[in-house]
This record gives sequence, structure tokens and C-alpha cells, in this order.
Amino acid sequence: MESIEKTIGKIRAIDETIIKRTQERLDNLTKPLGSLGRLEELAKQICGITGKENPSLRNKVIFTLASDHGVTDEGVSAYPKEVTAQMVYNFLAGGAGINVLANHVGARVVVIDIGVCSDLRPDPKLMVKKINYGTKNMAKGPAMTKAEAIKAIRTGIELFEDEFRRGVDIAGTGEMGIGNTTASSAITAVFTKKPIADITGRGAGLDDKGLERKIAVIEKSLSVNKPDPSDAIDVLSKVGGFEIAGLSGIILAAAAKRIPVIIDGFISGAAALVAFHLEPKVKEYMIAAHCSVESGHKVILEHIGLKPILDLNLRLGEGTGAALGMSIAEAGIKILTEMATFRSASVSERTDT
Amino acid sequence: MESIEKTIGKIRAIDETIIKRTQERLDNLTKPLGSLGRLEELAKQICGITGKENPSLRNKVIFTLASDHGVTDEGVSAYPKEVTAQMVYNFLAGGAGINVLANHVGARVVVIDIGVCSDLRPDPKLMVKKINYGTKNMAKGPAMTKAEAIKAIRTGIELFEDEFRRGVDIAGTGEMGIGNTTASSAITAVFTKKPIADITGRGAGLDDKGLERKIAVIEKSLSVNKPDPSDAIDVLSKVGGFEIAGLSGIILAAAAKRIPVIIDGFISGAAALVAFHLEPKVKEYMIAAHCSVESGHKVILEHIGLKPILDLNLRLGEGTGAALGMSIAEAGIKILTEMATFRSASVSERTDT
Repeated sequence: MESIEKTIGKIRAIDETIIKRTQERLDNLTKPLGSLGRLEELAKQICGITGKENPSLRNKVIFTLASDHGVTDEGVSAYPKEVTAQMVYNFLAGGAGINVLANHVGARVVVIDIGVCSDLRPDPKLMVKKINYGTKNMAKGPAMTKAEAIKAIRTGIELFEDEFRRGVDIAGTGEMGIGNTTASSAITAVFTKKPIADITGRGAGLDDKGLERKIAVIEKSLSVNKPDPSDAIDVLSKVGGFEIAGLSGIILAAAAKRIPVIIDGFISGAAALVAFHLEPKVKEYMIAAHCSVESGHKVILEHIGLKPILDLNLRLGEGTGAALGMSIAEAGIKILTEMATFRSASVSERTDT
Repeated sequence: MESIEKTIGKIRAIDETIIKRTQERLDNLTKPLGSLGRLEELAKQICGITGKENPSLRNKVIFTLASDHGVTDEGVSAYPKEVTAQMVYNFLAGGAGINVLANHVGARVVVIDIGVCSDLRPDPKLMVKKINYGTKNMAKGPAMTKAEAIKAIRTGIELFEDEFRRGVDIAGTGEMGIGNTTASSAITAVFTKKPIADITGRGAGLDDKGLERKIAVIEKSLSVNKPDPSDAIDVLSKVGGFEIAGLSGIILAAAAKRIPVIIDGFISGAAALVAFHLEPKVKEYMIAAHCSVESGHKVILEHIGLKPILDLNLRLGEGTGAALGMSIAEAGIKILTEMATFRSASVSERTDT
């Protein structure tokens, strides 16, 4: 297993020369200058990331990591803990939102148990990379040990690299874990220093009383653990989750391999925040799929400096927003690589230039 | 050819009973209540429109209508008039933005010459339904006769009905016509009563001086023609365009056949405005694909009461935004029809309900 530092060491600045050349090519396509807006920006970013003039996004892969959270003992979720495992079976059977949307856009879903609190029935489609049987209750002490946090990130790196050998042109992050918006709000509070109430939402559907309790639990978790914002591993181990750590590893590994990575919603955003605080250069490799209903997500996007592609009031996670965002990114690449130029199509250019 | 009144007479209110049943079904799918936001709203709207409990959006059709505008004599566009015809050839050869994006989402594009100012080379893929060789210069008098406006709308109705026989599950509007943002701003000014400067943009890329001239030309066109906002045909004939009229007909015909219609950008929006002022019930059948960069588009969406799916800084037209919007709408339908329920997947429901 490769060390985190070694992976981070491979992350380079994206290729500005290709971005400039891509802009020139976009300007020669049969459309008014810049008239495909965000699609053109995505095409440029992906060329810059991959270093390829004509990248293809045929191999679209969504990594959906499942894990449990000890903090659910505090009553921070509208759904019982068993739902994490039940939803993994649903992913494997193809009946979940992520299955439907990944099929719709032609992506494949890799399902990983990185810390579900029970032993799942074996399934050839399930990768078991369990760090532990769920995290500990962060309201009473650290969610995991530092060694576990590091192992979970390295597991994410390894997951990406294994899949990369099979072919990955663009990666998407996804997750499932009852209680994981609580961990994500805690992480967001530490790194962005925003008031907890401003970045804590209803998750899967808490009522007012539940939301109040959730905020109090996060406050307690931060005061019990005192995570150090200058040390991302410390934050992750004290108030994070195994799926969040794993996704951070996937994001870092994608950047190291020059593969664009589509960040899904709030929990994926928390993983992006950890990756960004480990290595700020990773930002250029990230594409924010959408803006979640969870209030903390917008704060994360602003903190990192990402502009979401979609705003569809989603708050499901699993990688559902990433699937839809991938399809828009692919549309941008197809514009670049499949459209005719003014010359090839014999279309007159502007009269005033 | 069927009369406009007869088509309008067939437009019914959408089916609220099915919408309610669809909501109940969505609430039983393995996801937190409402967590797929806009996708769920789209699924409900499309069920209500079609009256079907399990609609399919397999047959996706974008109607791209091309026409010229006499007002280009006033120097209101950054591109020469010949580009309209040249772009039609580009559509037929498959090299334009709409071809690439329609392919990406699995839609077919129907290309129609409804008023290009030259005779185009015959092509089996081109439908010629020319009302006239471009409109007249609206800065000097009506753009077309009332008979032409009515014929253009009826042509749109006929185009939709012909295609409907081949199979249309969802329709998208698209257009090409140098000068057509000028006509669209004029139409928007009449119906929404907003100041011309607020709803006039740079079209394909005017500079400041060009934009000033365009605004003056629209002012002149309105004062010369005095279109009557209470008479949509009067507005259309005085300051409209053949492609705009044709798209209004397509929108009305789609609603009459209970087919959802995805409205593309600003010019399609002007067509939607005409259709809406002919029959307000048509609104429920419309889905706004995106919010264009053209400032008048937002005003149109607010006037009709439509909420765009996407906001990607697009301003190309052709139906490009409609293609991307269609794919999101289809994602919504697939969520409804392909996801597992809590019961079928043996997933526990909320603990607090």
C-alpha cells in the first residue's frame, strides 16, 4: 500500500498550455464565442487535468463507499443504523438511486464496505475493505485512531488505483452511512470555522427537535476531541468517518493519476475538504457536481473555491449528483471533440472581427 | 391543416390525480423523502402531463427550426445573414452543437427550413416548410402578414403531429436564425412590458455599440408597428419570426397531445410566451431547460412562471439546452420507474414516523 505522502507528491499543477490551446479550438467551433458557457469551461479543465488534447470520458466510475458511525447512538438520524447495510444490498441488487442514475449516464458503480458495522453477505460485486465495524461515538472520544484514519485514506488510494488499472477516465465520489452528515458537519465546522448551526442540516430528514439535538452532539464532539484544523488527519480521526477518509484517498489518487474527479454532495464535500487541506493543488482536479440542500455544502464549495454544475435540490448522496454531473462534463468533452469548425463546415465568421 | 383554435381546444389541465399517486410512489422508494428534489418534481409533472403512471421518455425529439429576419438589414447581429443557411447545412452534416448534444442524450433532431431567405440544397434530412424567404424588416413595417403568422403556427402544429405519428415521448424546441434575438426581445418587451434595454442582450456577440443600435432598432420597430399585447398573433406578425411562430405551434400541439415540451433558451422562450398568451393552460406542459445568458430570458421565465432545470451560461440556441434538460427529465422518470421500494429492497423506514 502506497503512503499518502507518495500519492500527494505526484499531484502536479494542471497543464495551462493545453488549456490555452483548448480555448483556441473551442473558439473555432461553429458557435458564437463562449456560447456553450460551462460546457466549454469543463472541457478546458478536463484537458488541463488529463494533459490530453482529445480526452474521452467513456470509462465513468462512481465509487460508493459505505460505513457506519458510532455517533448514531446519540440519535442524530431519522433512520436506524441498519439502513447502511440494507442500502448496500440495495446497491448490489441495482435498486438504489445511484444504480438508476449511473445506468442513465453510462457509469459503473463500485460498491465498497469500508466500515459497515456488520458482516455483509458475500457478493462478487461487493468489495470488502473494512477498517473497523463502524466508528466510535465521537461525542465521547475520537471516532477512530490515527492509524485507522491513515489506513482508510490509503484504502481509498488503493481502491482508485485498482480500478484505474481497469480503466477510469473520470471518477465520481459517493457514499452511504447513517449518521455521516453529522460527521461531515463537524469536519466542515473545524476547517471553515463557521458556526455549527449554520452548517448543520436535517440529513435524511430530522425534525426541528432532532436538528437541535444533532447540533448539540456536534458541539459536544468538538469540545471533547478538540480537533486541530491545521492537521487534516487529526480532524478526520477525531470527527470523521471511514467512508469520508476513503473518499479523500480516492480524490488524492485520482489527482495523482491526472483523472478528473466529480465531487457529489455534502459528505463527499467533507472528503474533498480533507483532501484539499492535505494538498491544496488537488482542487484543480475536482469538479463539483451540484449544490446540495444541506447548508454546509455551499460553505464547503466556497471554502475550496468550487462552482457546482447543477442545482437540483438533491440531498440523497450515494454519488447520485456525481452521476448527473459526469454526464454534463462528458457533454463538454464531446462539444470539443465532435463539433465542426467554421472552416470544416464552411460557416462564415463574425463580420466585426 | 388543423386550425390553431382546434389544437388549443384540445389542451386540458394536467392530471392531478396521477400527480398525487406519483408522489406516494416516490415516497416509497429507497431514499429519504423528497431527497431527489427536482428529479422528483419532473417525474410528477411528466406523469401529470402524459396521464401515464409509468411514462417512458425513449423517443426524444428536438425540433430545430431555421428562418431569416429582415431586421438584420439594420445591423443587429455580429454574424452575417448567410450563416442561417450555412448552419442548416451544418445541422444536416451533424457538426453543430445540437447534433453533438442530441446524440449525447439519445435524442433525434428534426431540421426544418421554415423561412430561410435562400433555397437550400435538397437533403432527405431537411424538411422544407418555408413560409417566405425571411421576414420583412420590422423596423420599417410588420415582419410578416397575419396570414403568414397563422400559417407558421399551423406549420408548427403539423410538424409536431407528423413527428408524433413516428413516436414522440418528449419534445424539445430549437432554432437557428441570424437576427432572432432582436425579434425575441421585441416580443418579450410587448408581453412583459419591461424596458427594452433590460431584456435585450448581445445575441451571438454584439459589442457595446452594436447593443445600443439593437436596442434603438427594437424601439423603432415597436413604435412603427404598435403591436397589441392582448393579441398574440398581432405581436407575432409585427415583430416575430417564422421559427418563433412555428415553435409556438409545436408547443401548443405537444400540449394538445399530452406530450411534455422542453423549452430551450431565449428565442424558444419568446415562442413559449406567444403560446402562453394564446392559451395559458399550455404552461403546465412546458419544462424550462435552462436559464440563458440573454437577460430577457429570465424575464420570460418569471412571466410564465417556469423554473429552469439548468444554469450553465448557455446562449447558443439550436435546442442545445433542451437536449441537456431532456436528459435530466428522463433521469427523473427513471428514478420513478426503476428504483426499488423500501419493501421490495427490505430497507427499514424512518424511526420517527
